[in-house]
Amino acid sequence: MDLLAKTIKDIRPLDEAAMTAARQRQDTLTKPPGSLGRLEELSIRLAGIQGKARPTIERKVIFTMAADHGVVAEGIGNWPQEVTAQMVENFLRGGAGINVLARQVGARICFVDMGVASDLKPHAHLIVKKIGYSTKNMCVEPAMSEAEALKSLTTGIEIVSAEADKGLDIVGTGDMGIGNTTASSAIFAAITGRTAGEVTGRGTGLSDEQLDHKIAVIDRALKLNKPDAKKPLEVLAGVGGFEIGGLAGVMLGAAARHIPIVIDGFISGAAALVAVGLAPRLRDYLIAAHASAEAGHPLMLQQLGLMPLLSLDMRLGEGTGAALGIFIAEAAARTLNEMATFAEAGVSEGE
Amino acid sequence: MDLLAKTIKDIRPLDEAAMTAARQRQDTLTKPPGSLGRLEELSIRLAGIQGKARPTIERKVIFTMAADHGVVAEGIGNWPQEVTAQMVENFLRGGAGINVLARQVGARICFVDMGVASDLKPHAHLIVKKIGYSTKNMCVEPAMSEAEALKSLTTGIEIVSAEADKGLDIVGTGDMGIGNTTASSAIFAAITGRTAGEVTGRGTGLSDEQLDHKIAVIDRALKLNKPDAKKPLEVLAGVGGFEIGGLAGVMLGAAARHIPIVIDGFISGAAALVAVGLAPRLRDYLIAAHASAEAGHPLMLQQLGLMPLLSLDMRLGEGTGAALGIFIAEAAARTLNEMATFAEAGVSEGE
Repeated sequence: MDLLAKTIKDIRPLDEAAMTAARQRQDTLTKPPGSLGRLEELSIRLAGIQGKARPTIERKVIFTMAADHGVVAEGIGNWPQEVTAQMVENFLRGGAGINVLARQVGARICFVDMGVASDLKPHAHLIVKKIGYSTKNMCVEPAMSEAEALKSLTTGIEIVSAEADKGLDIVGTGDMGIGNTTASSAIFAAITGRTAGEVTGRGTGLSDEQLDHKIAVIDRALKLNKPDAKKPLEVLAGVGGFEIGGLAGVMLGAAARHIPIVIDGFISGAAALVAVGLAPRLRDYLIAAHASAEAGHPLMLQQLGLMPLLSLDMRLGEGTGAALGIFIAEAAARTLNEMATFAEAGVSEGE
Repeated sequence: MDLLAKTIKDIRPLDEAAMTAARQRQDTLTKPPGSLGRLEELSIRLAGIQGKARPTIERKVIFTMAADHGVVAEGIGNWPQEVTAQMVENFLRGGAGINVLARQVGARICFVDMGVASDLKPHAHLIVKKIGYSTKNMCVEPAMSEAEALKSLTTGIEIVSAEADKGLDIVGTGDMGIGNTTASSAIFAAITGRTAGEVTGRGTGLSDEQLDHKIAVIDRALKLNKPDAKKPLEVLAGVGGFEIGGLAGVMLGAAARHIPIVIDGFISGAAALVAVGLAPRLRDYLIAAHASAEAGHPLMLQQLGLMPLLSLDMRLGEGTGAALGIFIAEAAARTLNEMATFAEAGVSEGE
């Protein structure tokens, strides 16, 4: 069996026994029942994902994947393509938002070049797995071949598996790629049948006129590629991106290893749509960090059946929302694990 | 001048120059302008509060104040009064929710006995400042005298001042006290003129019938005490609590020392209503950690003019929401301080 099929097969239903045990423990902890709200729900789901009554969130890795997008030739954004490579260098020097927030939550970051348009300087913390030098312009031809789409998925699976071998309790996802909100909106439209207008936002900050142009570009790409909504690989190939495929692979690979995945914003959401299309069970392993300020994101989370933990009007990408979400997941696991029970503390219970 | 008046006088408008400098720095950092959303806004307010362009959130203290409430004689809850003392002992052993979350965010906790009904065993980490052994039953007589109300405020001011002398970048507030949602709802009604029905929730988990009874009890207390909405000390004395007065004092004392205050849920919100009633400028120093699941809380935050950072259906008190809010405030300060600028990173700027 090939790696993708095997990975999908390894994604099991959540462990009901672990969830029942976690739920029972929550009700014995020194607090009014249910008073930790969504932290309690999340702790129970973490138990089901990790398959243990007392889930732990200690070893944390954020996968921030970068790639370029041929569709920038259509002039859909305000930022030049070289910013993708420049920002990866900023990541490697520790100066970006994701560096700051990952340090705060105690997460390592795996930076992966999935298809930046230029060659990056080698660096100890950069994993180079280029599927190509930028995707093609999806308004003219498919963004990539189906073989490349498959390769981006299996690369993500391999990268997360290597980290899981070292020990890994939770995964965060993040992205960098000038033009990738355009690809993500196209994926969203292709998979859900929604119009480009419904699912397209201002990205890093477009005017009304620029937004109209971006919507028209996505419409053209969809009309040219006509991807079949039921074939996620075809969607990824037609209108996707190398980093989006890589992130979808990370999600599938993590779930196959019983590791919860905190997904970031709009681009990670598009990757999740592809991955859930391939493996519907994956949904139970996904934790939506936040509702991003990108216009289509709340609708995307609804489509995924996920309720975001945070809503802070962030729209930076890189995994910055995921870093904050990992903190909340850690709080959920720690309260379940570390709080005293009524019996241990000698506290009287309510009626 | 007495301590309260001096403290109120020392609460200055936010530092506009520091806020302007912080805003300018935000716009030079390597991210699309505004893309960190509420973290950016918060970082700018932190600059204004601390009076420096690069605010820092390193030394963190949560003040968790405990006291008992005479109104429990009316049978308004499901938990026996001795739970207040038992939970303080749980705090001191490190087994409560607030212990777990404060450890996670790296905050110290000051536990203060402001008026628990029994004598607690002495402990190195317990500050004993009893104003009395529980308040009186506010359905029969005022909860406390005006002298006691004033004393609870000045005690809070003194406690936070002592911590500020050691160095303190941010304050969190928390509470423990069986019956204190009843007192908090009564304060909310008294200060805003709303009916008890509008501002009363289920506390630690009441049935419909119990909720009706709690509302009737609050109505009786308000009719007996008739506190003047414009006299916050009179409101605190008539229907308040010792820990609520103490927390209001902590807020005033912290603001006077230019320290931001992350307020927890419903009880901290009632304390904030009293404190803002005394010193309207305090409002700018307050950060609402979360919208609690207690029914009246969103309305209370609206009254205070504060937008919560989080919404996780929590209703535990103790300062648990404040601990998570402190984490978000730290993320705001760190991103402002630690991210590279476009010039430093050699990243091209958008148009």
